[in-house]
Amino acid sequence: MIPRHVPLVETTRGGTPECVHYGSIAVVDASGQLVAAAGDPDSLNFTRSALKPLQALPFIEDGGMERYGFTSHELALMCASHSGEAVHVAIVQRMLARVGLDEAALQCGCHAPSYYVANGLAPPPGAKWNALHHNCSGKHAGFLAYCVMNDQPLSTYLESGHPLQQRIRTTVARFAQGDGIASGIDGCSAPNYAMPLKRLAQMYARLAAEDTAEMRALYFAMTRHPDLVSGTGRTDFAIMQTGGGDWVSKAGADGIQAIGIRSKGLGIAIRIADGSPRALHAATVAALEQFGLLDDSSGTPLAAYDCPPIRNYRGIEVGAVVPVLKLRRA
Amino acid sequence: MIPRHVPLVETTRGGTPECVHYGSIAVVDASGQLVAAAGDPDSLNFTRSALKPLQALPFIEDGGMERYGFTSHELALMCASHSGEAVHVAIVQRMLARVGLDEAALQCGCHAPSYYVANGLAPPPGAKWNALHHNCSGKHAGFLAYCVMNDQPLSTYLESGHPLQQRIRTTVARFAQGDGIASGIDGCSAPNYAMPLKRLAQMYARLAAEDTAEMRALYFAMTRHPDLVSGTGRTDFAIMQTGGGDWVSKAGADGIQAIGIRSKGLGIAIRIADGSPRALHAATVAALEQFGLLDDSSGTPLAAYDCPPIRNYRGIEVGAVVPVLKLRRA
Repeated sequence: MIPRHVPLVETTRGGTPECVHYGSIAVVDASGQLVAAAGDPDSLNFTRSALKPLQALPFIEDGGMERYGFTSHELALMCASHSGEAVHVAIVQRMLARVGLDEAALQCGCHAPSYYVANGLAPPPGAKWNALHHNCSGKHAGFLAYCVMNDQPLSTYLESGHPLQQRIRTTVARFAQGDGIASGIDGCSAPNYAMPLKRLAQMYARLAAEDTAEMRALYFAMTRHPDLVSGTGRTDFAIMQTGGGDWVSKAGADGIQAIGIRSKGLGIAIRIADGSPRALHAATVAALEQFGLLDDSSGTPLAAYDCPPIRNYRGIEVGAVVPVLKLRRA
Repeated sequence: MIPRHVPLVETTRGGTPECVHYGSIAVVDASGQLVAAAGDPDSLNFTRSALKPLQALPFIEDGGMERYGFTSHELALMCASHSGEAVHVAIVQRMLARVGLDEAALQCGCHAPSYYVANGLAPPPGAKWNALHHNCSGKHAGFLAYCVMNDQPLSTYLESGHPLQQRIRTTVARFAQGDGIASGIDGCSAPNYAMPLKRLAQMYARLAAEDTAEMRALYFAMTRHPDLVSGTGRTDFAIMQTGGGDWVSKAGADGIQAIGIRSKGLGIAIRIADGSPRALHAATVAALEQFGLLDDSSGTPLAAYDCPPIRNYRGIEVGAVVPVLKLRRA
């Protein structure tokens, strides 16, 4: 079943359309009521890193925060796709130490810190990275903390049959409200889940609006520390800064953006079918504008994502990234 | 006007579809007759680097090859999106010297040689590049040779009003057979043109099948020297090696692939709307297979592009790139 995606973003060259980025958008309230949409709000989409707040939920529900004396800093890292900056690495290291472990227990793998690509820099020659620099290391540290707390095996913490992953699956199914979900392995080797786009939007509406201790803790951690959830020069940081505490935002690999709007009790989920970051960023700004959440991006940290020019190797402006999406009210 | 693209390639994760790459395919004979298609064969698409043989045509028509004693090596470089390997740089340098110029005359800009990305390597620390390494430097050297030969200004050779660029525009319009074209500025700062996908396919059918001295020279140069037109580990090299001299192939940025099949007198043009290289490569192999041109990719240089697995940071296979295109006979 191929989703009924529609063109959301184009690029132009000399004023003529060149690339077309297809996708879908769902805007939903906390009860799951569809408020607006573009494309196919029922399409099944992997949640990827937008799932992180739900993957942290069992740890919070079981009293992990109190057990290890974790604050909003540690919780922000559990929900993060961080940039591997010094502050991110230090907090994850501290989390593992608190649990009695070190980076050798992390099974997320290793990649060069997102900091460099996000800021157009080359990593310094000879620099070495370890699992702490992986954008998901905070989530994995939280997984391990959950296992230690509940006396569950550490070496198999990413297997789908492990009690932690079973618990997360149940949590995801609960948030999917009986709609079908599908599973796969994420970039960091953890099980990940696909759910209807409207259910991802609902998850973020609940995150923003639901008055439970767990949801409040997640919302506070993410909106108070957008620099920890994301990083210097990254989109979620810019979105949450622009929202000024009212918007909780999390991107996922391959074209996922989820945003919860506290003041309106709404969640927005955007999927770019081809996974293009430039299209995702442009569609996000356009959706916020069309929904009346953003009057004018200029002067905000989102200005750089609003119809950005495309420049060639000599810096000549050859075109632009142009949203063509139209949110229709449900 | 947004083209009527269709899903050509999906990615999967855990067996569930994740990314969808839309696009169109046109298969056309040398007379312009549509033989098969997927999506929108009439869609207007920038030709990007697939235009290079036409951009070299005025130089050949005016006797430039004889004038400068250029062989198929130099002509292959004029048609190339080369990898900036030593052999590429040396030939372009030699071309410029023959014309009495050096790299200071090139206005293509500069980027790290494609060799590194294509082969999963990091450039050596401290390495410096100049315009000779730009993938289009051979095309630009040919532009400059044309200007010197015809006593035309060098400093403005990329301006759309320059006689060379006017001549190229007329050439493009001739190959578009009266269909509308559109113009823009390419990555290398040269004017580039969009034309209906079926006309790009026809251009490659003519390149493969037309019995004129110019077309024969272009076809011979490109198919004899696929390593010069492309580079180590690159797709056009793999396609032309697999074709064994029967297929002339040229990719263009942002999702363009054009192939001429000499034995069948056909041209194939493929466009991935979002510009994704992985989707373009998979769609190309699938189109060659569906058209009966490739029985089985295994054992050929194209095997790596045929439904390749997607691996995560730890090398675990999490999914695959899967063509879903269906070529319908016209």
